[in-house]
Amino acid sequence: MKNIAIIAEAVKSDSYMLAAISEETRNRALTDIVRALSDGRAAILAANEADLTEAEKTGLAAPLLKRLKFDNDKLDGVIQGIRELAALPDPLFQTRFARQLDEGLILKQVTCPIGVIGVIFESRPDALVQISTLCLKSGNCAILKGGSEAKHTNAALFDLIHQAGVSAGIPAGFLTLLESREEIGALLSCEDSIDLLIPRGSNAFVRYIMDNTKIPVMGHADGICHVYVDKYADLEKSIPIVMDAKTQYVAVCNAAETLLVHRAVADAFLPLLSKAAEKAHVQLIGCPETQARIACIPARETDYRTEYLDYILTVRVVDGLDAAIGHINRYGSHHTDAILTEDPDRAERFMQLVDSADVFHNCSTRFSDGYRYGFGAEVGVSTSKLHARGPVGLEGLITYKYKLYGNGHVVADYASGQKAFRFADIS
Amino acid sequence: MKNIAIIAEAVKSDSYMLAAISEETRNRALTDIVRALSDGRAAILAANEADLTEAEKTGLAAPLLKRLKFDNDKLDGVIQGIRELAALPDPLFQTRFARQLDEGLILKQVTCPIGVIGVIFESRPDALVQISTLCLKSGNCAILKGGSEAKHTNAALFDLIHQAGVSAGIPAGFLTLLESREEIGALLSCEDSIDLLIPRGSNAFVRYIMDNTKIPVMGHADGICHVYVDKYADLEKSIPIVMDAKTQYVAVCNAAETLLVHRAVADAFLPLLSKAAEKAHVQLIGCPETQARIACIPARETDYRTEYLDYILTVRVVDGLDAAIGHINRYGSHHTDAILTEDPDRAERFMQLVDSADVFHNCSTRFSDGYRYGFGAEVGVSTSKLHARGPVGLEGLITYKYKLYGNGHVVADYASGQKAFRFADIS
Repeated sequence: MKNIAIIAEAVKSDSYMLAAISEETRNRALTDIVRALSDGRAAILAANEADLTEAEKTGLAAPLLKRLKFDNDKLDGVIQGIRELAALPDPLFQTRFARQLDEGLILKQVTCPIGVIGVIFESRPDALVQISTLCLKSGNCAILKGGSEAKHTNAALFDLIHQAGVSAGIPAGFLTLLESREEIGALLSCEDSIDLLIPRGSNAFVRYIMDNTKIPVMGHADGICHVYVDKYADLEKSIPIVMDAKTQYVAVCNAAETLLVHRAVADAFLPLLSKAAEKAHVQLIGCPETQARIACIPARETDYRTEYLDYILTVRVVDGLDAAIGHINRYGSHHTDAILTEDPDRAERFMQLVDSADVFHNCSTRFSDGYRYGFGAEVGVSTSKLHARGPVGLEGLITYKYKLYGNGHVVADYASGQKAFRFADIS
Repeated sequence: MKNIAIIAEAVKSDSYMLAAISEETRNRALTDIVRALSDGRAAILAANEADLTEAEKTGLAAPLLKRLKFDNDKLDGVIQGIRELAALPDPLFQTRFARQLDEGLILKQVTCPIGVIGVIFESRPDALVQISTLCLKSGNCAILKGGSEAKHTNAALFDLIHQAGVSAGIPAGFLTLLESREEIGALLSCEDSIDLLIPRGSNAFVRYIMDNTKIPVMGHADGICHVYVDKYADLEKSIPIVMDAKTQYVAVCNAAETLLVHRAVADAFLPLLSKAAEKAHVQLIGCPETQARIACIPARETDYRTEYLDYILTVRVVDGLDAAIGHINRYGSHHTDAILTEDPDRAERFMQLVDSADVFHNCSTRFSDGYRYGFGAEVGVSTSKLHARGPVGLEGLITYKYKLYGNGHVVADYASGQKAFRFADIS
């Protein structure tokens, strides 16, 4: 096993250099990476074949096999993604504001990279390409730990990307690939060298990372999303939204897990729901009031806190709007929650009081996603309230610094009253 | 001892309500607080007298006594501060961007409060007033733990502020004052109810907080700030800047601790420094090359990592600009660092490559402060790279949420290709 702490320190050192690399050089490197991946197509596909063969031997489950597969289509997809990324405006060196503090004393807030990003992800090899190019565009060094089942594919992709980047003039530490699972523990202790961790994987995995490091973590563990059918909902319109939120893709964090129904419409709505659920093979788990109206499995309190990621929907009848808000703030995971109502004032109250990153009116929770928000590249979804929140694009990988330009200015002159600040924003 | 977890949960519940209180009500509450503090002047001063009497009995050190003192001038100062705060633009309910995703599907990024802020501070009672009004303006609930030596003053201030706020229509949980030191431990475990901790106090105290909680912490432990005198520095101009950075107020985080000198100017500069340091009673600690040129105490490596907060300056001769940058990134605390040079290109390189929140050219590190940056109210100084960095104003207490307004939109239509996104920013 390599000494991760020493590697991370060397990467940290290179990160200071990468922070000053021009937009032109970073974009040229991205273009070179496109060419390298395109030219290396045969090697990448062969490496992926090797991973797939091994995975089939060890009996990897079908959904994981599907994620692991990296064919011509997927390669074309990530190459197109890099082209779009290169065309995005530079997130670095942007002056967010400039202000004169006094004559000849100018303050600027300027964007800069975060530094070193540690990314731990599971089988999908496309994640390696996306994350490494997002970090390069934003001037960050990336230390990647991929899944061992994708090791041949990851190694092939890494070699091509790293070599193309270095040839284009990027410091060698811009990208590091770790290989063994044992290295994760060591990585989590590198709080002096790694500025941010982005774990991409199961809830339990993300929770483990969050609980075992002092490094700030960007991401989310649970995704317990709600749809609330209000007293003033259009019930016909509500059914397709609820079913989309639940079934369009059940294994993802922005799928709905709990449906809340205003008591005043429970008699009319629940039979419609029951019919739609049966048709879509969704198992309903219901509170006593739901049980009194439709066939369902009795709900326990733990169901309100469970992310099933399956064709299962928990249903609860509530007293009204504020009870729905209270339920969501209590049992939810502050990810994405929707209200279905034709009353815009009630929608606004819900969206104001529900303490989640994404609050929706009359549409499916499944829209909560960087691509659908039009962000282009996506880093992940954050349920933290600090730094980036919700679907996170490139701006989640940058921070800023204050630059102050003077000409011999000292604080003593202002403390003594000999000089006074003359603040004036510079546009 | 009260059950802190239960208190924090109740505050969390009120925080959802506070997030929706109008600007008008919050500003009216601030105005009412001004009146309450003004009318309660006699009670506040009497409470402070009681604290001072007890503190003198227990032999509190003179600088702490000075901080503890809360007289007419200090009260006028905080009252003026609240008036200015009330006049600032509302940080909440601001739409940062709006975008059409498709016809009738509108995304907005809107500012909102973080939620519940825990603030732990030492003796200064003015901090209680500043923090509680900053939190109110930004729609956050505050749980405060003040120093026991200020308990009478804090209780008097809290009663006036809390009563005025509640009378103006603010939920009672907007402000909570904890009294015993034992409660800090319980507070640090409230990661489900408290969104952010702001510790204000000594390095050891802040470090202890950071190491003993899962709640995100905003602030800084060490403040090891550097001044680098470049080969192209104007030496005459440099001396007053260095002395201001070191001596204008030695006990603060933005005072310089280490001076780096380019070897090419060491012969000319160090004797000037020696003379100025002697006059200002600053003890110099020097590297071997410094020792060879002027009288000083020999430096050990630990001196480069020590925040003396005293009339002590560590001096090191370096090979050049990049050696200075390397030293700062290695030994510094990423707070504030200055270059003194007449060459703007070298200044820009330094400001680009030094990985600190505040990087200065030809002026004193002591300018690194929210008031001097023209931010008005200051929450603290952050050396974190996530969320707010450097001196933090009101914007450090807010976050945002995404609001998505639809009309029956479901993701299945876009996944099937039946509909396509039509992104268009709305100005």
